[in-house]
Amino acid sequence: MRVLGIDPGLATMGWGVVESGLHSPVFIGCGVITTPPDMRLQDRLIHIRNSVQELLTTHRPDEIVFEELFFARNVTTALTVGAARGVAISACAEYSPLLYEYTPMQIKQGITGYGRADKHQVQQMVMLILKLSAAPKPDDAADAVAAAITHLNAGPAKIQFRMK
Amino acid sequence: MRVLGIDPGLATMGWGVVESGLHSPVFIGCGVITTPPDMRLQDRLIHIRNSVQELLTTHRPDEIVFEELFFARNVTTALTVGAARGVAISACAEYSPLLYEYTPMQIKQGITGYGRADKHQVQQMVMLILKLSAAPKPDDAADAVAAAITHLNAGPAKIQFRMK
Repeated sequence: MRVLGIDPGLATMGWGVVESGLHSPVFIGCGVITTPPDMRLQDRLIHIRNSVQELLTTHRPDEIVFEELFFARNVTTALTVGAARGVAISACAEYSPLLYEYTPMQIKQGITGYGRADKHQVQQMVMLILKLSAAPKPDDAADAVAAAITHLNAGPAKIQFRMK
Repeated sequence: MRVLGIDPGLATMGWGVVESGLHSPVFIGCGVITTPPDMRLQDRLIHIRNSVQELLTTHRPDEIVFEELFFARNVTTALTVGAARGVAISACAEYSPLLYEYTPMQIKQGITGYGRADKHQVQQMVMLILKLSAAPKPDDAADAVAAAITHLNAGPAKIQFRMK
């Protein structure tokens, strides 16, 4: 099974693709979709939509997981980041109904066994699990990879993480 | 010139179409796109995207105006309402780059000449301007119609309302 992980954002949206292997998950690829702040919102959203669609046709994932947005900044920021997330969700949902969502804490728990692990511990475990010599870069891509691994490892329990 | 107004929301998204007439704006139609709260977010967003696309192909507006979201509720609400708005903006932006945005206060000012007018005053003026015997229903549709009229009446000053 191949899983696409997405860490949604407007300026930077991380993505990572991981596949189930014989013994452990296999790293396929990762990266970020970026849009500059001086670009019009409408053009940023179109770029995100097109880029997500391109990821789907390139990698043909079986299931897609989102890292849940979790931040306490102001409502204005939530509106525009929410817009980027909404566009990504709708592009993915047109491709497949199999969307899942994990909180940052669930991902930390899933990767390290400890929900309050720090970024460095998560990255070390991701490297070990995927047998990589360096952590995926940049951070948003690494987060998306960690979300995808968490989903692969969730087994039948993943049903509880279906996006609401 | 034909203008589509949109009052974005997740549960209820208002829309209204108004055209410039010889002497005053002409009412073409209005309504709401609704999605039930027990529907999955991904399906609500797809429904909104499809419905907005249908509006665009049915009414072929020359320009599109959004009422700016302005509310002080919690960040979680902003995320999902922002998602609905983002999906609507991206569907519209694929159709035309001519997107505009007005705050509720700018719309009240545009319709009644007074930025703190109440809902009833705005509806009375909308009825007068469009020569309707009753106010457009429901409220979200009426708000979208008011946004479209505001834009038609803005003249060359509309350039300052281009969506950022």
